[in-house]
Amino acid sequence: MLSTIKIVLVETTHPGNIGAVARAMKNMKMHNLWLVAPKIFPSADATSRASGADDVLAGATVCETLQEAIGDCQIVFGASARGRTISWPEITPRECAEKVLIKEPGNKVAIVFGRENSGLKNHELDLCQFLLRIPCNSEYSSLNIAAAVQVVCYELFVASGLAAEEQIIVGDKGEESLATAAQMESFYTHMAEALTDIGFMHPAKSKSIMRRLRRIYNRVQLDTKELDILRGILRMSQGHKRNNDA
Amino acid sequence: MLSTIKIVLVETTHPGNIGAVARAMKNMKMHNLWLVAPKIFPSADATSRASGADDVLAGATVCETLQEAIGDCQIVFGASARGRTISWPEITPRECAEKVLIKEPGNKVAIVFGRENSGLKNHELDLCQFLLRIPCNSEYSSLNIAAAVQVVCYELFVASGLAAEEQIIVGDKGEESLATAAQMESFYTHMAEALTDIGFMHPAKSKSIMRRLRRIYNRVQLDTKELDILRGILRMSQGHKRNNDA
Repeated sequence: MLSTIKIVLVETTHPGNIGAVARAMKNMKMHNLWLVAPKIFPSADATSRASGADDVLAGATVCETLQEAIGDCQIVFGASARGRTISWPEITPRECAEKVLIKEPGNKVAIVFGRENSGLKNHELDLCQFLLRIPCNSEYSSLNIAAAVQVVCYELFVASGLAAEEQIIVGDKGEESLATAAQMESFYTHMAEALTDIGFMHPAKSKSIMRRLRRIYNRVQLDTKELDILRGILRMSQGHKRNNDA
Repeated sequence: MLSTIKIVLVETTHPGNIGAVARAMKNMKMHNLWLVAPKIFPSADATSRASGADDVLAGATVCETLQEAIGDCQIVFGASARGRTISWPEITPRECAEKVLIKEPGNKVAIVFGRENSGLKNHELDLCQFLLRIPCNSEYSSLNIAAAVQVVCYELFVASGLAAEEQIIVGDKGEESLATAAQMESFYTHMAEALTDIGFMHPAKSKSIMRRLRRIYNRVQLDTKELDILRGILRMSQGHKRNNDA
């Protein structure tokens, strides 16, 4: 279960940190590393700090956009130390681990970490359902990126042990699977179109309203059946418009 | 309570690691660092990796023997990844944190970390009451020393309950209040009307679709601002209809 969870690093500046992250992951039996537009990679610094976790580095997938990295994922967490003016649903690493491995197992999961100096940008957090926040000293809250990955992967490893001990049966609930990040993006694109069509918003001024709507639908974790219903509603409101315009 | 717990590093080779340890400690509100015969200290590498935790470095006590460092302590943990032929009483970081801060508070505590390559020697573990072992991949079990300190200090911080207190403070963001049940009912009535108006459903057959939509919006816990936005969308889709019908 652990090995499928993606650790995604966005625009990491120091390759040594990438190596340290690989080591932190392997220490906790995790291997699925994605690098979005790293400044320098591969690098001797990364390999040196990986200290025997070169297999994780060698297997890392490098891509250009965060969307590519998380496209097939159903639950996406964005790690952040900063408080945000718009409040995101926050979750601790322990809650995250319980959610992913015990309460809602079987989903494709990504955990996204931002730049060393500035973390994730708001438009990147818009792609995440949960803000992952490591409890820490409020007056000195910026963990080194590899240290943050270490804490999160440690909690996942501990929870996976608990899950195994408790012999949790993976949720055979006959339910619909959760929508992927790519399906949600396509939904948001459709929504923006439809809201423009019905005159609810102008494309030029749509940014903050779309962000608010993302907040709502990201945190609800739609399944594919629910997504179908909502898209049906969008289509009807558009079709209606077109019929009336004709 | 946290600030009295000593983190003791024995014969650390790389000064960068000492700096990273200082940062990891300060992130978790810990300050009491002891260095037993460090190879190089102070050092620019240590200060650079400390990244703002220079106060912890400046306050560190350097001494020649482990005995000096732990002399006044009542509970001493020795961190170790290696299995030992002689079996020591083992404890996890979580158990350690509970013991120190919840079950047996008020004792002077030291947590001892060994050399980067070879850990603690048996004669050093003889001075410890408990072997502290971080759960990890049995096939790749050597954490970076700063990563190990990070995990242990994180568990101590979580146990200290400071996290809970601080989250309460963070939570007071002047957010919108959550919608009441009555507001939600009024929203669902409006939604049913609007979905009928746009031709998405027939009133007679609306029961199961409305139940599904309730499942979605009930679990998202809308605040009043968000509810206003969604009702605005419903109104626009209806107004559009009425304008076109007129």
